[in-house]
Amino acid sequence: DLPFALIAGPCAMESRDHALDICGALTELTRRLGIGFVFKASFDKANRTSGASPRGVGLEAALPIFAEIKQRFGVPVTTDVHEAAQCARVAAVVDILQIPALLCRQTDLLVAAAKTGRVVNVKKGQFLAPADMAHVAAKIASAGNRNVLLTERGTSFGYGALVSDMRALPIMARATGAPVIFDATHSVQQPGGLGDRSGGEREFVSTLARAAVAVGVAGLFLETHDAPERALSDGASMIPLAELGGLLEQLMEIDRAAKSFARFSP
Amino acid sequence: DLPFALIAGPCAMESRDHALDICGALTELTRRLGIGFVFKASFDKANRTSGASPRGVGLEAALPIFAEIKQRFGVPVTTDVHEAAQCARVAAVVDILQIPALLCRQTDLLVAAAKTGRVVNVKKGQFLAPADMAHVAAKIASAGNRNVLLTERGTSFGYGALVSDMRALPIMARATGAPVIFDATHSVQQPGGLGDRSGGEREFVSTLARAAVAVGVAGLFLETHDAPERALSDGASMIPLAELGGLLEQLMEIDRAAKSFARFSP
Amino acid sequence: DLPFALIAGPCAMESRDHALDICGALTELTRRLGIGFVFKASFDKANRTSGASPRGVGLEAALPIFAEIKQRFGVPVTTDVHEAAQCARVAAVVDILQIPALLCRQTDLLVAAAKTGRVVNVKKGQFLAPADMAHVAAKIASAGNRNVLLTERGTSFGYGALVSDMRALPIMARATGAPVIFDATHSVQQPGGLGDRSGGEREFVSTLARAAVAVGVAGLFLETHDAPERALSDGASMIPLAELGGLLEQLMEIDRAAKSFARFSP
Amino acid sequence: DLPFALIAGPCAMESRDHALDICGALTELTRRLGIGFVFKASFDKANRTSGASPRGVGLEAALPIFAEIKQRFGVPVTTDVHEAAQCARVAAVVDILQIPALLCRQTDLLVAAAKTGRVVNVKKGQFLAPADMAHVAAKIASAGNRNVLLTERGTSFGYGALVSDMRALPIMARATGAPVIFDATHSVQQPGGLGDRSGGEREFVSTLARAAVAVGVAGLFLETHDAPERALSDGASMIPLAELGGLLEQLMEIDRAAKSFARFSP
Repeated sequence: DLPFALIAGPCAMESRDHALDICGALTELTRRLGIGFVFKASFDKANRTSGASPRGVGLEAALPIFAEIKQRFGVPVTTDVHEAAQCARVAAVVDILQIPALLCRQTDLLVAAAKTGRVVNVKKGQFLAPADMAHVAAKIASAGNRNVLLTERGTSFGYGALVSDMRALPIMARATGAPVIFDATHSVQQPGGLGDRSGGEREFVSTLARAAVAVGVAGLFLETHDAPERALSDGASMIPLAELGGLLEQLMEIDRAAKSFARFSP
Repeated sequence: DLPFALIAGPCAMESRDHALDICGALTELTRRLGIGFVFKASFDKANRTSGASPRGVGLEAALPIFAEIKQRFGVPVTTDVHEAAQCARVAAVVDILQIPALLCRQTDLLVAAAKTGRVVNVKKGQFLAPADMAHVAAKIASAGNRNVLLTERGTSFGYGALVSDMRALPIMARATGAPVIFDATHSVQQPGGLGDRSGGEREFVSTLARAAVAVGVAGLFLETHDAPERALSDGASMIPLAELGGLLEQLMEIDRAAKSFARFSP
Repeated sequence: DLPFALIAGPCAMESRDHALDICGALTELTRRLGIGFVFKASFDKANRTSGASPRGVGLEAALPIFAEIKQRFGVPVTTDVHEAAQCARVAAVVDILQIPALLCRQTDLLVAAAKTGRVVNVKKGQFLAPADMAHVAAKIASAGNRNVLLTERGTSFGYGALVSDMRALPIMARATGAPVIFDATHSVQQPGGLGDRSGGEREFVSTLARAAVAVGVAGLFLETHDAPERALSDGASMIPLAELGGLLEQLMEIDRAAKSFARFSP
Repeated sequence: DLPFALIAGPCAMESRDHALDICGALTELTRRLGIGFVFKASFDKANRTSGASPRGVGLEAALPIFAEIKQRFGVPVTTDVHEAAQCARVAAVVDILQIPALLCRQTDLLVAAAKTGRVVNVKKGQFLAPADMAHVAAKIASAGNRNVLLTERGTSFGYGALVSDMRALPIMARATGAPVIFDATHSVQQPGGLGDRSGGEREFVSTLARAAVAVGVAGLFLETHDAPERALSDGASMIPLAELGGLLEQLMEIDRAAKSFARFSP
């Protein structure tokens, strides 16, 4: 029952300078607040709504930037992988390999990520029942890797909408024993909501994050940007960097209250 | 941003003695904890899954019991009404008229309840978007009554299942200005889940209640029983009376943390 | 495996003249096509989204019009009832009592309708699994009435949207033995989709009606109007009267093809 | 408005002999009925619920079998690809590259499949609105390939369940101009319904296929097996080979009826 850790960053890695700026600000903020921090950025947005949308700097350009970030700020980093062949190269630098929600059942990708020995963070598919993540965790364990994180990021609810079922957090934790993380910014996405890209309801990030922390999570995932309206992707759901501190302070207060009691189970 | 109030009781009014016992225990508990309390019991389960299931003591028998409870314990009471013609008679005794979720769009029932001048607590239909509760509140206001409470109790999610969307709480509050209540025991129901009656997942009552309180609610609704396995209805979702104190203490801790900050709105 | 019958009319009874005009046109059309016909109109829209929307001519005014329609055109008529006390009066004139979807679990209303001895047509609630309609039919049978019709009209699918599950048609038929009807115009409604009233996607009426007829139904329910854009309610989903004949001819062709084989059950 | 074509086969390619037997039977059946036929089998079940379930013969073993089938029976063949690197090799033999539903937004996979010049058949993700398939088709077109097929195979509906929205068929057709296919056996799957594998409701294959054909499709996809209870995967939803002829005859009758009219569009 430790305080929650934060996985955060700007969705896509937009440039070296931008990544360093954001990571610097987040490192300083989380040190001041006394919470764990992992820097996240995507080198490739591989499944965007539209093929015409930008995808990021790419694997080759991103790895040296991740290495520089780790060295300069002393924080672990995470990014998402999309094909089995990427796993070993990414794992040479990156501490946590993230499996995208839509790929959470791709056995080869899970096994390749597991075999790197790195921590594997699997996002629960929008189409999957929480208890079925036990099979996902078992695929990773069968490759000899027990360092699994599971992340809730919303479930399909009609067309173009997600709903966050807070029961998923204890269900995944009990079914696997893995630490469970809540992704507070993708959970407010509206898939396809802006026609050729996903929309988002930023106003509900704090609503859902508060709820998840009260239920009990090991970590919180969220995307942030100094200027979300100019972000390469997912701007509609990201939290402005300038507002993140206030949000985290409130969440830490709720986290302390929630974890001050043994888990209630009537 | 006052502490949450509690609306609680045994689902169906099973007998005078049983209602008095439960209300006595709840009055003592909530006074010790220092939270507001409204006693709830149904005189008629008018929309049970099966017509062969018991329905309760009925309106005639229930009203004197409600009167006795108010007089003996000094607490307000609430019950649900099902047809417009019942409203005036029930309102002669009962402080808060509750409109069942399935009936939340029945204009005549809403207006008849409103015209009594009593507080009207409308449960959001499982088939309704939260923002549409603004039209429901407007029907009551149009009858000259501004004392409306709105209660979230889960939304249809496939067949035989509900999901609790925590966004519904701020959406209903902003759309109407009305105090919003979270019903933590009906939200874990599985409609029709036991064949000829609804099932329930009691283990998630505390999960969802913690989430709702962290998001911010004016009140919490839950059903409780000294022996849920013998309850006339909804036993699978009710909280055992003996465990209620522990749950409430934890929720109060989260409530304080959540309300110690001004509402965060990035 | 008779050809499907048609239940149709203008949603709300708008006036005596309008009801007679529509019923006259529908009587002529269905006689020409050789299919059974029941005239439908609502005397009261009792659960509209907004309390400010018009509700219809009312029970007192409607009953003589229904009587005149029956006498003049020789067709059976149906309307929806909302409270138990209305059933006996309506049944004095009307051949089929329709129970609205939101009220399909109200035991007293079902029993009161059943006791009239008239055919009772229950619309499946948007929140209900098809198999649970067996309990609804049993409530009516327990009152000594076996003349039940069950109508599919869409199921909640996220907020403000319905989906028509074609499996519901055989599930309800097998679970109850009752004739099953498909409501092709309410199934394309978008609840609350126009802000203060429900929207509709008229373009899909024929899509869903074709599908339902191919699956196998005893009847088709749909609302029609000479000028849907001027209709008192539900204009966005109604079929223009001038286009109904073409639709029905196509549906009859599919109906014949579907019923020319014994039901296939692999 | 040609008669529907059939894409069918045994889900997984279990062995050379088994594939030849099934394809022989299907070739004979479809020639007798006079409908187009494409043989389908998967060389790898890459995203099974459990990592311990069998996955099929693999790419190396499957390609010569596909070649033999094409040569012996003179029918086109299709199989599903999972990573971009597989596309060119598979396309050397296989006529239609199928993109699995969960991978329908993976830009690299779509583009690699498109660049082979083969027909690309994309299954709509269970998490996707039908109109969003326009972006999927555009990704393929942007790679210079206009030979796209789109296949409906059910949409997430709560946990562990799918619903088939018949509106998806015309929506996808209008949004893209591509021929639309209905997958009648995966649409009755219950994801994770058998604990460590997906369940299925075979009894509804004919229900949904009849509905889809009445709405209007260019093709029907279904999996079949001489002994579904012994199948390597998806046995619970496959149609027994011996019953397929009867089903197809009925569907052809409905298809003729549906296509005998110009599409009705009120």
